[in-house]
Amino acid sequence: MKLEGLAQRTRELKPSAVREILKITQLPEVISFAGGMPAPELFPVADVAQICTEILAGEIGRSALQYAVTEGFLPLREWVCGHIASFAGFRPTSEQVLITTGSQQALDLMARAFVDPGDTVLAENPAYFGAIQAFRAAETKLVGVASDAQGMLPGALEEAIQSACTPVKLLYLVPNFQNPTGATMTMERRREIAHVAARFDLPIFEDDPYGRLRFSGEEIPAICSLPEAGTATYLGTSSKILAPGLRVAWLVVRDPSLFEKIVPLKQASDLHTSAFTQQIVHGFVSDTTRFGSHLSALIAAYRERRDAMLAALGDHMPEGCTWTRPDGGMFLWVTLPESIDATHLLQHARAHKIAFVPGEPFWLDAPKRNTLRLNFSHTPAAKTGVGIARLAALIRGCS
Amino acid sequence: MKLEGLAQRTRELKPSAVREILKITQLPEVISFAGGMPAPELFPVADVAQICTEILAGEIGRSALQYAVTEGFLPLREWVCGHIASFAGFRPTSEQVLITTGSQQALDLMARAFVDPGDTVLAENPAYFGAIQAFRAAETKLVGVASDAQGMLPGALEEAIQSACTPVKLLYLVPNFQNPTGATMTMERRREIAHVAARFDLPIFEDDPYGRLRFSGEEIPAICSLPEAGTATYLGTSSKILAPGLRVAWLVVRDPSLFEKIVPLKQASDLHTSAFTQQIVHGFVSDTTRFGSHLSALIAAYRERRDAMLAALGDHMPEGCTWTRPDGGMFLWVTLPESIDATHLLQHARAHKIAFVPGEPFWLDAPKRNTLRLNFSHTPAAKTGVGIARLAALIRGCS
Repeated sequence: MKLEGLAQRTRELKPSAVREILKITQLPEVISFAGGMPAPELFPVADVAQICTEILAGEIGRSALQYAVTEGFLPLREWVCGHIASFAGFRPTSEQVLITTGSQQALDLMARAFVDPGDTVLAENPAYFGAIQAFRAAETKLVGVASDAQGMLPGALEEAIQSACTPVKLLYLVPNFQNPTGATMTMERRREIAHVAARFDLPIFEDDPYGRLRFSGEEIPAICSLPEAGTATYLGTSSKILAPGLRVAWLVVRDPSLFEKIVPLKQASDLHTSAFTQQIVHGFVSDTTRFGSHLSALIAAYRERRDAMLAALGDHMPEGCTWTRPDGGMFLWVTLPESIDATHLLQHARAHKIAFVPGEPFWLDAPKRNTLRLNFSHTPAAKTGVGIARLAALIRGCS
Repeated sequence: MKLEGLAQRTRELKPSAVREILKITQLPEVISFAGGMPAPELFPVADVAQICTEILAGEIGRSALQYAVTEGFLPLREWVCGHIASFAGFRPTSEQVLITTGSQQALDLMARAFVDPGDTVLAENPAYFGAIQAFRAAETKLVGVASDAQGMLPGALEEAIQSACTPVKLLYLVPNFQNPTGATMTMERRREIAHVAARFDLPIFEDDPYGRLRFSGEEIPAICSLPEAGTATYLGTSSKILAPGLRVAWLVVRDPSLFEKIVPLKQASDLHTSAFTQQIVHGFVSDTTRFGSHLSALIAAYRERRDAMLAALGDHMPEGCTWTRPDGGMFLWVTLPESIDATHLLQHARAHKIAFVPGEPFWLDAPKRNTLRLNFSHTPAAKTGVGIARLAALIRGCS
């Protein structure tokens, strides 16, 4: 087949530097701070096995294997409402909850629902790579808005809205422990940003994959809890609090006309999310005691890993390097001396048996090539020191 | 949020008459020939439970709950190659197999990979509704090509290609036990259609969800097995031979440049299909003896149900009605006297405690409103006679 036969619109989507990184991570003895994976040794495999047995032996067992409604498994949608109410400062109704095949599908559906080719979507700069991929697949003009340690800058947001060359359709935000920077928006900043968006009638899309993984500092209500945020859309997932291999997330669509538009899009995309994995997630999270103790164990382990990484960075990193100190989540963000390109570093990473993700693909514009992302959730704390020492040696070698 | 803020391109996707049908099917005592569901009592729930336990207790248990590669679970991709080779007349390589979240996602990915807004895709008329939804979501101009009992007419295909107003990007075909008509293309017709497509350099997309469910007649090799078909793309699924609730299908992309384009699209859509459900499907189908006897049991049960439906139609249907006699699959297609609109019939279906799908949504153009689709896989044979008698009474009441 000649490539000319294929659609123009999706030509830009290319496999990323991720391939090179994957190759490195598969080598023996490599310590990887790349990827964004939960710690597999903390997956509750025995609980999941028990839940599977219960589902398949029970009355509803056959419904778990059958076609199901597009909106999702109702008991799970109902659980989501109470779950969100318990920390986010707002309570959705189950009619507002759409179960999606992981957060990635929700990003894709939102992009397709809002964006005509060339339309503008605003996001933090740098931004989550999966969101960048979904919006680019919908031919979005993604514009990065400058941020500091407290999150997106309201003045920069206003300027970006006013200077956009095409209609601005959506403001995409990851307010808690952002991927890739680990930054968390303060309450005041959330209010300011929501206020600017409201003034320009700009819908907000709040993505909160990591919010439950807070190790330090105080819980901050979701942007969706603010009156200024109107009918902002909220995205949560089971991937970081249970298991990403199940592919179950929840999109809270509080605008009825958007919900009505997005359900047929979901139906056209994959009919519905696996009824079986939805029932597994529900089986796990609806046992409050079990879910609570699992979450506590995750938080304790990830806190230890973050602390180990922060300590090792302090011990080993060469002068001129700085890094963020996230209160939760899975990532921190390193800025190298300006002369060092992290993408070039990767070429020597293989020899140093170390993997990370260079910052470049996360930037929407004006890439700071001297940045990189480190994941701390996947590597046991005992290995972190050695890994960071290797990274420091790699950086020194390229200085 | 004002609807004006949403994308123009996806405005046309409306929830279908399916809602009304769903409401009817949920009423007590209704016999439903609507939907396209496998028989739930034939789901191998005990086997699936055992496989889940084995996966989660085993070495790879944690990988089933973790993020996974976009292309799919390699042992399943390898099994797909041998499976296809066993009946379809060609053997793909595992590098050509992409695991998708059900066939619906494969349809969506193919639409997005091939179609720029306004491009033409040709399909049988009437065509599978899920494909219509996926292509419409990509703003495709779908054009129906006339068919007879042997499948698409080569002359009509040639005419449709030559008279298309926009670039013709793809030819979508369901050659075995088509949904909705139940028709199967003869070998000769497959060759003729592939020949016409080759003359115009038109890529073929062969969708084969029902091929394994043959009750009578001889196996016919896939269109993809023909030299004329070039690098035609093939779609298979576990939904009809195991369980749709797992959402696992396989797209065989034999053109490397298409595979390279479609993998990043899949990644942007949902990262990957559930690693757990992929491993479950592999666990089930890779036990040749178990899979073989399950398939035999399915075929025997569905054959009995088809026969029961054909017998009941012969016994009860009023004069002027005709119907197809499929050699497999899950559906047959009824043509009523021209004066009867099947969509209007549905308004009285509730009172008659019977459900079916009117033909109208399946037609790409020139809808024959006096048609309807009957599913025979979901209703036990013992109930079929009563259901068809009710349908016949309903038709008589509207004549």
